[in-house]
Amino acid sequence: MKINCPFVERVLGAFIREELHRSGFTRGIVGLSGGLDSSVCAALAARALGPANVLGLILPYGDLAAQDAVDAADFARRLKIRSRTLNIAPMVDAYFALEPTEDRKLLGNKMARERMSILYDVSAREKALILGTSNKTELLIGYGTVHGDMACAVNPLGDLYKTQVRRLAEHLEVPQTIRDKAPTAGLWTGQTDEGEIGMTYEELDRILFTLVDRRLSPAEAAAEGFAADTVARVWALVRDSEFKRRMPPIAKLSGRTVGLDFLYPYDWGK
Amino acid sequence: MKINCPFVERVLGAFIREELHRSGFTRGIVGLSGGLDSSVCAALAARALGPANVLGLILPYGDLAAQDAVDAADFARRLKIRSRTLNIAPMVDAYFALEPTEDRKLLGNKMARERMSILYDVSAREKALILGTSNKTELLIGYGTVHGDMACAVNPLGDLYKTQVRRLAEHLEVPQTIRDKAPTAGLWTGQTDEGEIGMTYEELDRILFTLVDRRLSPAEAAAEGFAADTVARVWALVRDSEFKRRMPPIAKLSGRTVGLDFLYPYDWGK
Repeated sequence: MKINCPFVERVLGAFIREELHRSGFTRGIVGLSGGLDSSVCAALAARALGPANVLGLILPYGDLAAQDAVDAADFARRLKIRSRTLNIAPMVDAYFALEPTEDRKLLGNKMARERMSILYDVSAREKALILGTSNKTELLIGYGTVHGDMACAVNPLGDLYKTQVRRLAEHLEVPQTIRDKAPTAGLWTGQTDEGEIGMTYEELDRILFTLVDRRLSPAEAAAEGFAADTVARVWALVRDSEFKRRMPPIAKLSGRTVGLDFLYPYDWGK
Repeated sequence: MKINCPFVERVLGAFIREELHRSGFTRGIVGLSGGLDSSVCAALAARALGPANVLGLILPYGDLAAQDAVDAADFARRLKIRSRTLNIAPMVDAYFALEPTEDRKLLGNKMARERMSILYDVSAREKALILGTSNKTELLIGYGTVHGDMACAVNPLGDLYKTQVRRLAEHLEVPQTIRDKAPTAGLWTGQTDEGEIGMTYEELDRILFTLVDRRLSPAEAAAEGFAADTVARVWALVRDSEFKRRMPPIAKLSGRTVGLDFLYPYDWGK
């Protein structure tokens, strides 16, 4: 699971540039939470595209995680990228005034989708593509809101485990204050990813690497010393979140169905 | 392009039941616009799952397209499915009060994403899966809002061209008032799909069928009598909307990347 940080930085920089240019864009936009992943993504984008071509959108819900919003703005200044802050509370509160709930997951998912909706709106206004911030750990266990924080135009971080993103963050000189934070989806005060998932990212990443990259079965992983019930739980998370990693299934009726036989015309006659 | 309506109804009914049951659900939810596609989807779902297991959500923006909302509620009553109406204007207006625009496309996309966000919220509250309503024509030319009306859990209509959906609507006894409407995304008063796309669905579907299903090149399609510039325009629409039909590209770094080498564990150990 070791990564060569200068090499990874070069590959991801080229990826960001090429994907944007291929679609006719020169600018990128990143939703900045003040956390690790979005900071790393913004730092990569600033180096790959030039700071003037990167916009950081900071989208707090009122005063929830106010320090994170400050950290995000500070880091944007340091990167010399543009940044804007927009409070999502008016939109989110308007909805829950009509449909009240105490369920923190419902609140958090609505917030994540409101952020997506704003990012896409600003993306269209600014002619800038949205750079995603979901890492491989989150994608594999489905720890994210579909059509929320998982939505983006291109994803530079999706093949790096959380613990690898941490190493890259150090290499990219993301400030210690951001790197030392307990990872959180920020859905409620005191939420931490590791508390919610029930294990550390170190353990989770090692299990995922064993199952997915090394292709061991759960039984083989357990034989290597991982707790069998923990492995089974991780396996179930991967299996049950598959729908978040694919396009919705379409009922097949014709000889050429979107997403099945009719795939990617990516470079058609360009 | 002819379809056998009783056969299609049977296939789509089985698809809806199997996809829901496979994921452990018994109920479906459809966003009802009062237009053709969502009416057909609701009619299929009511037959496949039983009317008590289908919820129609009617999500108008204030009084825009008020008659469509009435038609949707009438049809829901006729199908004996539950329905609810929720006005999206408070949420949408809260945003545009902060970020004003006259751009109708920006307004329409925000509305479509607000509807998605509400559908997913209600989907979680009701433990019901969202049935999509994007047809093959829309999917192929990218006529829809990504993370908006294109978002769903499963899509029964995605392999039927618009003109085929019309035939199915007749078979399913969707009311004439709904079938006779000029198709519209409902983004602004007076908008029609055909006006915006610049050709009729009959023409568009025949060109798409020629290019996609019969796999003719644009030159071969033109040789069959289609106007060469129209074919070229349709071809460009398909090519340039590819990003709406696929998951965002992930920068490849490892031996097993989500969406590339690590695909669908769909039936893993179930």
